[in-house]
Amino acid sequence: MLNKSHGLDRVFHALADPARRAMVEQLARGAASVGTLAKPLAMSLPAVLQHLQVLEACGLVRSEKEGRVRTCRIAPAALRAAAQWIEGRRAQWERRLDRLGAFLDEQDSEQRSKR
Amino acid sequence: MLNKSHGLDRVFHALADPARRAMVEQLARGAASVGTLAKPLAMSLPAVLQHLQVLEACGLVRSEKEGRVRTCRIAPAALRAAAQWIEGRRAQWERRLDRLGAFLDEQDSEQRSKR
Repeated sequence: MLNKSHGLDRVFHALADPARRAMVEQLARGAASVGTLAKPLAMSLPAVLQHLQVLEACGLVRSEKEGRVRTCRIAPAALRAAAQWIEGRRAQWERRLDRLGAFLDEQDSEQRSKR
Repeated sequence: MLNKSHGLDRVFHALADPARRAMVEQLARGAASVGTLAKPLAMSLPAVLQHLQVLEACGLVRSEKEGRVRTCRIAPAALRAAAQWIEGRRAQWERRLDRLGAFLDEQDSEQRSKR
């Protein structure tokens, strides 16, 4: 549980940077080399590699060297864990609103039956 | 677009902290006073207020003072924006896998028809 929580810390931290989100957006469209990932970003290759390291360390991306080219891919488990945490909170909050709505409807019809 | 991206920076940064996620988890179960929010967290009230400020600044939480009690609630729009970003990337990536699967099936049946 502690590990899972620590994992979410790192995934959300990774997603808090616009350049890293741009890299994930690009990789969601398909695997890409580091060079291709770097092209649309206005930054040096070392800076791109540092962002890539953050994305790999938290498990959002994996990469492998094929010959002289490092190819990067989305690793879906971390993205799924982050989505599940947010979606879980949203669903819980909406269920609560539903229950509140049902309670108010009930109060309303009780009031009417007393009239 | 720049603003929206900046908003996601702040939302994901806010969610990268376990104490702030614990506060969102509690608020997803219902509105709570600052005192109630602070109770399960092993930290000072000023520290809790600082975390609350981060959650309010990025739009995940709103609070209002009723008499002497400050009541906090989930503000769903920011949570929805973060969920949509992640879900969008996941869906894109999975559509790509589907297309790849369809392509491979096609190649496979072409190979067979040539035999």
